[in-house]
Amino acid sequence: MANSLDNIRIVLVNTSHPGNIGAAARAMKIMGLSRLYLVAPKLFPHEKAVWRSVGAVDLLDNAVVVDSLEQAIGECGLVVGASARQRSIPWPVQDARDAAASMVEAASADNQVAVVFGREDRGLTNEELHQCQFHLTIPTSEDFSALNLAAAVQVVGYEILMASRQEPAPGQQWDVSLATVDDLERLLAHYEEVMIALGFYDPATPKQLMTRLRRLFMRSKLDKMEINILRGILGSTQKALQRGDSATE
Amino acid sequence: MANSLDNIRIVLVNTSHPGNIGAAARAMKIMGLSRLYLVAPKLFPHEKAVWRSVGAVDLLDNAVVVDSLEQAIGECGLVVGASARQRSIPWPVQDARDAAASMVEAASADNQVAVVFGREDRGLTNEELHQCQFHLTIPTSEDFSALNLAAAVQVVGYEILMASRQEPAPGQQWDVSLATVDDLERLLAHYEEVMIALGFYDPATPKQLMTRLRRLFMRSKLDKMEINILRGILGSTQKALQRGDSATE
Repeated sequence: MANSLDNIRIVLVNTSHPGNIGAAARAMKIMGLSRLYLVAPKLFPHEKAVWRSVGAVDLLDNAVVVDSLEQAIGECGLVVGASARQRSIPWPVQDARDAAASMVEAASADNQVAVVFGREDRGLTNEELHQCQFHLTIPTSEDFSALNLAAAVQVVGYEILMASRQEPAPGQQWDVSLATVDDLERLLAHYEEVMIALGFYDPATPKQLMTRLRRLFMRSKLDKMEINILRGILGSTQKALQRGDSATE
Repeated sequence: MANSLDNIRIVLVNTSHPGNIGAAARAMKIMGLSRLYLVAPKLFPHEKAVWRSVGAVDLLDNAVVVDSLEQAIGECGLVVGASARQRSIPWPVQDARDAAASMVEAASADNQVAVVFGREDRGLTNEELHQCQFHLTIPTSEDFSALNLAAAVQVVGYEILMASRQEPAPGQQWDVSLATVDDLERLLAHYEEVMIALGFYDPATPKQLMTRLRRLFMRSKLDKMEINILRGILGSTQKALQRGDSATE
């Protein structure tokens, strides 16, 4: 089970206060999580991070600092975004407990898993949230829900630890590895290209078509073979279009 | 349900740092708990408590300060003591989840319930622990278990809130109706037709292609608009193929 926790990374996006990075590292370590990714932190490394990490400075030393969310999640098979509120286009949502079960299941099957936490004041942008397969909410009082960053990491980490200690479900073996975020992005780019070629999609008046396709494939937990099938269909469509073009020349 | 949370009090014994009282109050309020008892706090009231409570100052204002644990728990029907380690005389122990279920059950039956947290450095004394019906432990990493006071209150409060919400959630709002089985079957038939036309799929040597597409879309819980998008792409592909054909005639 230690193994499955090693496959789960915590990604903090654009954190303003280094103290919160330290407190989050501490919260992680208490729950057996060790892999911290920092996307464009405002101040890091910083003595306040060290000070607040109290005993978890090894997580700060080993933290991976990157410029963009893509770099932090590219190789992941499951990406979950922490989100406090419902968005304009609803995305699949799980509470922290169910989300932790999903994450541990994926991690146990040796997929890389990420939980993404946003800025202290504004959380994650819609664009960032759309890069996640599903969203995670932490149940709170309806009247006062301002869970701070480290407390949110604490609760999610706790649920991950609890999930990792459940009896492994006799469950279910999947036959193919999960597709990575990179695979998925290439699939979506391929769809866009083909839909434009088909005249089905006009990037100038896009409406929500790409977002809806993205949401669909994000939540479907595509495996690598399914990606290959869908891209095979798209590739065949492109070849057919080229044959059509050359025939009309 | 609000009712059962109103019957649960958090008791902090002999807290050294007023900032921790404030942070605990904040953690409580986020989880819908409002009743704070302080047994012989070292410094209270104190501006650091107010400062760390950020928005939960009402809990501090209403906190009941007493001299002894007995006064804080006397009227309670259930008293649970938070304890990080096993004691010389083993006491009944539940983890935070099971303990929260017990507490909410008792509170729902209109019993007064207390969870008692000890000093930052030494926790509860044996004598204090023996005033509790059972002990509560928060699962943590075996290597690093130093959960601080406010984080412990946060996790226990979270479990209490979760336990109080056990009734089935009304479930998430989606923006479009789910596709029916018929919709799905038509989509799969449409895929088959187009894949054959594209030369991507040969029904004579099918392998598992259709089964894999079926499994993918079955588990994706497609909504009606997503079905329309996918079928729109397939329809455009068919039109393109026909243009190609007529051009070569």
